[in-house]
Amino acid sequence: MKRLFHLSAAAVLLLSGAAASAQHFAKPEEAIAYRQSAFSLMQAHMTPLGAMATGKASYDPAAARLHADVVAYLAHLPWAGFVPGTDKGDTRARPEIWTDSARFQQEAVDFRQAAAGLSKAASSGQLDALKQAFSTTSQSCKSCHDAFRHKQSR
Amino acid sequence: MKRLFHLSAAAVLLLSGAAASAQHFAKPEEAIAYRQSAFSLMQAHMTPLGAMATGKASYDPAAARLHADVVAYLAHLPWAGFVPGTDKGDTRARPEIWTDSARFQQEAVDFRQAAAGLSKAASSGQLDALKQAFSTTSQSCKSCHDAFRHKQSR
Repeated sequence: MKRLFHLSAAAVLLLSGAAASAQHFAKPEEAIAYRQSAFSLMQAHMTPLGAMATGKASYDPAAARLHADVVAYLAHLPWAGFVPGTDKGDTRARPEIWTDSARFQQEAVDFRQAAAGLSKAASSGQLDALKQAFSTTSQSCKSCHDAFRHKQSR
Repeated sequence: MKRLFHLSAAAVLLLSGAAASAQHFAKPEEAIAYRQSAFSLMQAHMTPLGAMATGKASYDPAAARLHADVVAYLAHLPWAGFVPGTDKGDTRARPEIWTDSARFQQEAVDFRQAAAGLSKAASSGQLDALKQAFSTTSQSCKSCHDAFRHKQSR
């Protein structure tokens, strides 16, 4: 089976930059809802990948490929929602997202790269590759959450 | 500029079918949140397209292409969240989604087709094409909402 979506390196760069600059939100809560929706969808597609990676579900290469492709695509979206000042309201975003912006941006780059690797691993049809890439991607999630997300809703 | 994402007709069919069968939700509220997140993101990307289509914002072909590509991609996702029985809870989904399933599925097919047309129109760089395709897509949204979504939160 071919990969469902083909992203050139240039397109990835373009999307990341363009998504951040093209998206505008009328209200802070819209930006918050936007990024939360993107992360929520990613989580929904990471969960079945995690079940396969840990042996809790049987390995379904076609499903894994689909989920990983969706994660890799969605990985480009949420960053546009981190509009300055949106650490207030119904969000666990820490102010360090904006005060330590360079590190946050690097986390975002690392995550997109990990998610692209996850998609590549899933397309290989090799469970071992998927396990490794899932672990790398999950660690990227955790690294950013540890630094930039409050532990609890506030 | 090339289109960011290339979906073959086969891939589109595959994704639509695979997304519905591959996605599982532990709880009804997760299915509801999943589909709402997908629609919310689509709305966020439809809004700037609508502003361009109606002249409220100046036409930015690159941004339009990006937004339309995201809408066309996301158009495949929410349907997996319409798990039977999830017309209860924090949702405006009408029970007709399941009692008149054939019509609902047709609305979903029509919408994906309209969103693909929107992406194609945006990639043409022609504002008139974008206007027409935006109108077609919006009408598809409305047609489904009129039939299958409660007017108010309940």
